[in-house]
Amino acid sequence: MATVKQPSNPEANPRVKAVFDDVRATRKTDFINNLWRSLAFDPSLLETTWAEVKRLMATPTRLDPLTKELIYIAVSVANSCSYCVHSHTAAARAKGMTEAQHAELLAIIALAAKTNHLATALQVPVDDVFDVNASSS
Amino acid sequence: MATVKQPSNPEANPRVKAVFDDVRATRKTDFINNLWRSLAFDPSLLETTWAEVKRLMATPTRLDPLTKELIYIAVSVANSCSYCVHSHTAAARAKGMTEAQHAELLAIIALAAKTNHLATALQVPVDDVFDVNASSS
Amino acid sequence: MATVKQPSNPEANPRVKAVFDDVRATRKTDFINNLWRSLAFDPSLLETTWAEVKRLMATPTRLDPLTKELIYIAVSVANSCSYCVHSHTAAARAKGMTEAQHAELLAIIALAAKTNHLATALQVPVDDVFDVNASSS
Amino acid sequence: MATVKQPSNPEANPRVKAVFDDVRATRKTDFINNLWRSLAFDPSLLETTWAEVKRLMATPTRLDPLTKELIYIAVSVANSCSYCVHSHTAAARAKGMTEAQHAELLAIIALAAKTNHLATALQVPVDDVFDVNASSS
Amino acid sequence: MATVKQPSNPEANPRVKAVFDDVRATRKTDFINNLWRSLAFDPSLLETTWAEVKRLMATPTRLDPLTKELIYIAVSVANSCSYCVHSHTAAARAKGMTEAQHAELLAIIALAAKTNHLATALQVPVDDVFDVNASSS
Amino acid sequence: MATVKQPSNPEANPRVKAVFDDVRATRKTDFINNLWRSLAFDPSLLETTWAEVKRLMATPTRLDPLTKELIYIAVSVANSCSYCVHSHTAAARAKGMTEAQHAELLAIIALAAKTNHLATALQVPVDDVFDVNASSS
Repeated sequence: MATVKQPSNPEANPRVKAVFDDVRATRKTDFINNLWRSLAFDPSLLETTWAEVKRLMATPTRLDPLTKELIYIAVSVANSCSYCVHSHTAAARAKGMTEAQHAELLAIIALAAKTNHLATALQVPVDDVFDVNASSS
Repeated sequence: MATVKQPSNPEANPRVKAVFDDVRATRKTDFINNLWRSLAFDPSLLETTWAEVKRLMATPTRLDPLTKELIYIAVSVANSCSYCVHSHTAAARAKGMTEAQHAELLAIIALAAKTNHLATALQVPVDDVFDVNASSS
Repeated sequence: MATVKQPSNPEANPRVKAVFDDVRATRKTDFINNLWRSLAFDPSLLETTWAEVKRLMATPTRLDPLTKELIYIAVSVANSCSYCVHSHTAAARAKGMTEAQHAELLAIIALAAKTNHLATALQVPVDDVFDVNASSS
Repeated sequence: MATVKQPSNPEANPRVKAVFDDVRATRKTDFINNLWRSLAFDPSLLETTWAEVKRLMATPTRLDPLTKELIYIAVSVANSCSYCVHSHTAAARAKGMTEAQHAELLAIIALAAKTNHLATALQVPVDDVFDVNASSS
Repeated sequence: MATVKQPSNPEANPRVKAVFDDVRATRKTDFINNLWRSLAFDPSLLETTWAEVKRLMATPTRLDPLTKELIYIAVSVANSCSYCVHSHTAAARAKGMTEAQHAELLAIIALAAKTNHLATALQVPVDDVFDVNASSS
Repeated sequence: MATVKQPSNPEANPRVKAVFDDVRATRKTDFINNLWRSLAFDPSLLETTWAEVKRLMATPTRLDPLTKELIYIAVSVANSCSYCVHSHTAAARAKGMTEAQHAELLAIIALAAKTNHLATALQVPVDDVFDVNASSS
């Protein structure tokens, strides 16, 4: 099921072809996953989305590649995005995530969800020391 | 504002005192933040919550302490928990998060939120290769 | 702060006055809380919202009044609605919720949030026996 | 999969038949989609839900019909409701949504999600000018 | 689909077997549902999750067993956890939930979601009387 | 309260000044709201976020400016972003949203939230006709 038809021959559009070529070159694979095939219905949305993903997730930055995938999984779980949980868990594995690290990631996500709900239910007032404008440093 | 009164003299209860003592010893500080002061209205809930936080977040595990805080912040933002965003951003800073790392964390959370919403709006079908049961390994 | 101005003399509008009178009569109090004062900017929205709240929450139905408030709090916490968490925690107390029941409610909300996030992170397939159409009854 | 059995012959119940007849007459179609077939397990819930959908979405109001569907899709995506994203994307198309408008809708939803997460992560204080009670008008 | 492989012979691991044995004994059934089979990939996560579920949901506490399931369903719906909605709706039925109670639960969840969104859209200020610290009791 | 300090003299940084100048010129106002002042702690994040907001929200596109703000508000409410609800409600008013349109927007958001939760609670199967790949067009 889907809400947008994937173009049957997406690379007939040169803008789509350019993005798909860059995905293949950047990831060193021939595989183009469904998110990009679905976004191909609108070349502009495809281009801007891929540019941002490439810049942050497929380019060396301050945070190491695996840490970035763990953060991505955490947000995707909390936002209940089934597709993203699948694709970024696969990406994290490809970047070296062990089963033990995966289990610990899940335990932390679950604990954060638990205390998020407790703090919201209690409506705990934020401590003054957590206000960055109040700190002396 | 709050939905539960913080006990005015929480450490009169020996179970609460034992937890607060452990928080102070574990974190090497005299400061007890409001989440624990609010949870003190029910010693059992206080004990089990602290035990889980201590085990995962204040004990050496496979993931390094800063990575764990970044994951915690990511979940807390996606779950819109104001208190938790404040407390764990402060904790991440205390564990060495630089301003540049913080900016990158925010950029990744924002990108994940963006693609989470895109994938949900498109109802992108999960690629077969992302199914762990289908993989040959 | 607010995004809509509360009318300064809301009961000058007879439709608003009728709703406020019914709120007071139904709840046996002179107090009109801010949700109704804010909704008064649009009498139609005020009328339909109050009618639904009155029918489900202020009229005897199959579930007892306290159980209904506990369910309402649970949804409001998961949806991060600060106002609703405050107002329905107060309502639950008014309907007899003890501190011990409150603590248990929080523990269950926190546990559900935890396993919600675990099941989503694991993308656990739904067991056939949970499909109501598959059951033999 | 489902959590409630759709009645096998729902229109044997005259209250269900009345709603289904009204759905068909209002939408000028013989098709009754699964939401209504599932809600048929409780005629009262079916009646009140349809009455509200009909009044707001199938009756001329201030906002034009397509705009209302775009808003409905936006909420459904943010709330991760797979069924609603499918049904309201189909409804928007039936009301004239072009592929270009759909792409722009997705881009705005994605941008809003991004800045929602940024503002929450930064805990940006609300500017005084945004407080409707502070404005001079 | 899933992100973690269920061990093909999970009870070869004595820690997993101990948990599965306890699930069977506690629930008086031979059936082990997929959440536990998936969590079996990490015995520690399996043990701590089951211990918490058993303590709160499978042991007599202040709230009656059915009320606890209704609360669990409410949170799971608001968090969009498909698996949990299925499993806890089945559990509620096993504990005696009637069709009429189910319909009322759905109506209350739907109403709470509605007023949650209204209060957030209006940014309704919390009434002073809802602040537990301000009350005279 | 905030998690990041707003630079005291942000326009001393030429990259920040360039963005602020563009915000002022684009919006024809001297006012720079707090989101941009907070993002100024990282010029790169400020630049990319503003560029996307300007391109979609402050440039003529297919959807009219007011419709775009209504969609933005809808997502922000569902994601519980207090800051964004405030800022985009103010923006919608500046672009001509009447009180009557605002009330109708709130009614639709509330209805969508309601049916989102109902469909998730019922786990309604998606109708085949809603699958864009199944349609004959």
